[in-house]
Amino acid sequence: MGAAPPLKPSGVVTKSQVPAESEIIDRLREIASHPAARGLRDDAAIWQPPLGRELVLTHDTIARGVHYLPGADPSDIAWKLVATNLSDLAAMGAVPSGILIGLTLDREDGAWLERFAAGLARVLSEYDTALFGGDTVRAGATVLGCTAIGHVERGRALTRIGAQAGDDLYVSGTIGDAGLGLAALRGEAPADRFLERRHRLPMPRLALGQGLFAAGARAAMDVSDGLLIDADRLARASGVAAEIDLALIPLSKQAGLRLGEADSGPDGRLTAATSGDDYELLFAVPPAATSAVVALAGAARTPVTRIGGLSAGRGIRVLGMTGEPLAPGRLGFTHDAPSTGAR
Amino acid sequence: MGAAPPLKPSGVVTKSQVPAESEIIDRLREIASHPAARGLRDDAAIWQPPLGRELVLTHDTIARGVHYLPGADPSDIAWKLVATNLSDLAAMGAVPSGILIGLTLDREDGAWLERFAAGLARVLSEYDTALFGGDTVRAGATVLGCTAIGHVERGRALTRIGAQAGDDLYVSGTIGDAGLGLAALRGEAPADRFLERRHRLPMPRLALGQGLFAAGARAAMDVSDGLLIDADRLARASGVAAEIDLALIPLSKQAGLRLGEADSGPDGRLTAATSGDDYELLFAVPPAATSAVVALAGAARTPVTRIGGLSAGRGIRVLGMTGEPLAPGRLGFTHDAPSTGAR
Repeated sequence: MGAAPPLKPSGVVTKSQVPAESEIIDRLREIASHPAARGLRDDAAIWQPPLGRELVLTHDTIARGVHYLPGADPSDIAWKLVATNLSDLAAMGAVPSGILIGLTLDREDGAWLERFAAGLARVLSEYDTALFGGDTVRAGATVLGCTAIGHVERGRALTRIGAQAGDDLYVSGTIGDAGLGLAALRGEAPADRFLERRHRLPMPRLALGQGLFAAGARAAMDVSDGLLIDADRLARASGVAAEIDLALIPLSKQAGLRLGEADSGPDGRLTAATSGDDYELLFAVPPAATSAVVALAGAARTPVTRIGGLSAGRGIRVLGMTGEPLAPGRLGFTHDAPSTGAR
Repeated sequence: MGAAPPLKPSGVVTKSQVPAESEIIDRLREIASHPAARGLRDDAAIWQPPLGRELVLTHDTIARGVHYLPGADPSDIAWKLVATNLSDLAAMGAVPSGILIGLTLDREDGAWLERFAAGLARVLSEYDTALFGGDTVRAGATVLGCTAIGHVERGRALTRIGAQAGDDLYVSGTIGDAGLGLAALRGEAPADRFLERRHRLPMPRLALGQGLFAAGARAAMDVSDGLLIDADRLARASGVAAEIDLALIPLSKQAGLRLGEADSGPDGRLTAATSGDDYELLFAVPPAATSAVVALAGAARTPVTRIGGLSAGRGIRVLGMTGEPLAPGRLGFTHDAPSTGAR
């Protein structure tokens, strides 16, 4: 303890040392190049939001041992921390502006910090998002918080509310890859680079999300806890019933092979539809908007698939491979059971 | 595990039970009455910022055992979590709009949650600030993050940069109370309700901060790590030297008595000026603006005191009770030594 610590250039922290909080901030300062961050030299950022736009604000916290495996690559942890927040912005059609992060670190060393900072810089650069600020704390646990801020044209943010009976239900990309990737990363299934990458590095569907309102979609959310449970949530929020046709759920080639090997038929697809961590977009589209949504998907280079529809009623119905109604034992992960269940 | 958990009305959680994450969100929902929060039913808030204003954004994280004593009243923890963030907004002259919180809880029970929620509701109501959103996680540690968002007239946010040689240095309120209160709370000194309250319930100086730019102040920050170290930081950021006259530092009656009992003379005042957690405002004022600042202090019902000045040079000089130069062994708390040192 003593006077203010001298600011050290990055690289002075030895890899095996536990960096001091001031050293962590110095490393983050290199990433915080947006003028709003003021070089992290004040206690707050000063940012001029785009004129007349609404802001979309979200916060997610992840903890070691709960949301990621203790041995995970810190670069991937940083990517996922930011990407999952940006996925919430994507679901509302927002353009990301910046993030603030809260890093509570345990005994992570200089090498960990360097990898984390590299992943953070990469994901922020990929999605043209600024590091506005943050805080860092040393404690007996690793807890990483991220607040993401984006903007959207006034009145044009999509939410879970607004879907109507008669709408089709669409999902982007493929479903179930991340869950299968987690099983592989845990050693419960053979390694698979594609599936593991889908778990480690989710890609927020920003370009698709930003076009959905104009294309005529009525409601949207991102799929984080499992396709079925999230479809149930969207339907309940909109006051309608969802019907999901398992045979229509888009699977990657790798997921199809793996699920086919493990258990062919509806069980494999149920696994995909309840495994969570997809970070794809789920959205409701009136039939008249089909061609606009297909055109958007092409422009955004993001495949979309109709997986069912919405009708009067409440809750979710799941149809098996031959159209028979199923009663799944579970729909996905709830707030009380982490979707990446590292514990 | 199963389908989406039924939403329970608050009060169903038994006090001694560990509430599930969905139950925590239900309790927070009662506080999140601002339309931007959308009842916490979507993954993000949608907020229209005041037209043409700049936003001020800050994030602070606190951890049990590091920033607060394990036995602290959860209501006080919530107050302090929010108030310290609002203090960062106050220093820049911003009007608070809303917060997002990230609650990582360990085994805190229903009674803890109820007290925390009550304190959160109280501090947000006191400072007319909305709960925009947040996230909650169960893990093996208690880590509480808060992102606060405020707004300020464009180009009129005060920062640490801008103080000039010849400016006077002022501080609001009284200094050292919180540090003495912490000692009392830890049982290292006799109990004192006033001093303990100053530690438990900091009052962000929003009204004062919001008037400082117009009154002619050139730089400001909040005093969180100790008056001397923060004065040193302000001076360094502005490229000038600070001179602090210990005899001028404003002490409360209670702090004066306690410091007089413990060690009279400069040592007691040094204790006050290095003990941290004051959450008062420190600001630089050209002599021509003195009367405007005094008028502002009256209007904001916040006493302010000239404690020294700024001159050409670098770093900080501390003058003792008879004007003799001192060389304090420490200036306050650095990022690497928590100011409320519960560990």
